[in-house]
Amino acid sequence: DIVTFLRMKQREKKMLTGKKVLVSAGPTKEIIDPVRFLSNHSTGKMGFALAEAAHQLGAEVTLVTGPVQLETVEGIKRIDVVSAEEMNKAMLDHFAGQDIVIKTAAVADYMPKKQYQHKLKKQPGDLQLEMVRTPDILKGLGEKKTTQYLVGFAAETREIERYGREKLERKQLDAIVINDISSMETGFGSDDNAVHFISKQGANVTLPQASKQRIAEQLFTEILKEVELNDR
Amino acid sequence: DIVTFLRMKQREKKMLTGKKVLVSAGPTKEIIDPVRFLSNHSTGKMGFALAEAAHQLGAEVTLVTGPVQLETVEGIKRIDVVSAEEMNKAMLDHFAGQDIVIKTAAVADYMPKKQYQHKLKKQPGDLQLEMVRTPDILKGLGEKKTTQYLVGFAAETREIERYGREKLERKQLDAIVINDISSMETGFGSDDNAVHFISKQGANVTLPQASKQRIAEQLFTEILKEVELNDR
Repeated sequence: DIVTFLRMKQREKKMLTGKKVLVSAGPTKEIIDPVRFLSNHSTGKMGFALAEAAHQLGAEVTLVTGPVQLETVEGIKRIDVVSAEEMNKAMLDHFAGQDIVIKTAAVADYMPKKQYQHKLKKQPGDLQLEMVRTPDILKGLGEKKTTQYLVGFAAETREIERYGREKLERKQLDAIVINDISSMETGFGSDDNAVHFISKQGANVTLPQASKQRIAEQLFTEILKEVELNDR
Repeated sequence: DIVTFLRMKQREKKMLTGKKVLVSAGPTKEIIDPVRFLSNHSTGKMGFALAEAAHQLGAEVTLVTGPVQLETVEGIKRIDVVSAEEMNKAMLDHFAGQDIVIKTAAVADYMPKKQYQHKLKKQPGDLQLEMVRTPDILKGLGEKKTTQYLVGFAAETREIERYGREKLERKQLDAIVINDISSMETGFGSDDNAVHFISKQGANVTLPQASKQRIAEQLFTEILKEVELNDR
């Protein structure tokens, strides 16, 4: 009957009630001097869509974000960071007690070895910019995880499934979402996405091009199937 | 009488009628690979304020801008570029026939020696990013100028007057606008600015903190004093 149907719809809509979800989003900025920085094209849209979907589905959501031009809806706990090191600290600080942790942030792999307090003056000729590795946030979370379901993102321009599977294993993830950023319609800054969801437990789901909001909901459906299996 | 007064106001308002003004604005982005880039904190606000002020004052305005989040008012010819090399080409292409050329853009001094078609994979250990000098746009314009009144900007965090005067001479400018970006209230991204205007002909004017729109109008007043002297 209609009452059962509405209750069912209600339950579906609030499928994340009681769950704690941590999402990282956006780029990081690695500061060279007061003027210059190294960054990437991430706009944060996919991460914000996931945080909003989780919030609408009833979860208690924490969103750690690099510098982006996006607003957060009320009810989401937002933590703003700039560099990979700051993002690493924020993610580690909030990791305990989470049910689902999704790392969409495009974290810089390298940061300048030295940060300059004053603007560097130009020198004649070429420049060797010495860069060192940033902390591998996802790998660190993978090593630290207890009951968290940990999801990574892989942005690739080629051999996307091979690189994705390698990353899933290397970083001890529960699942990885792979997107092909070589497409103009689904890459950085676009409102749509098209992804593959691959899990440690064997899921291999293709989510064809849709809005990032729709992709976010579909991803939570896939993730919940596995989280609920674990809970039994 | 009132008619004379209104005519005077009208003339004042349109002090750039018949003049052609070229402004560069914003940062440049130097692409490393499909994901990574090197950039700076310029938001383009000062350059856009100058372009709009010139337009309101009756000038025919061309605005060459790097990637920014700003809209251009109708009537301004806008040319969008990404890298320092593209900005250089656009400025050189539009330089002839200008009366006033103002370079506010924060152009990258260095670009990666190599651009990668595919996303670079992380390697263990440190990275030496090989960088080469970008074309010196302002210097190139200084060498090429005939009757143009050429204005540079210098963003400094210390010894701002010394660095500014050196730049004025080295780049064969007619004037330089120096701003101290060490202040939070007048630096990158803020709506206010506070500058020193120093010219080859001997002007040394301090424009205290005001909106970038107000600073833009004041700068055109200073510039016009010298351009009109030249015209006699």
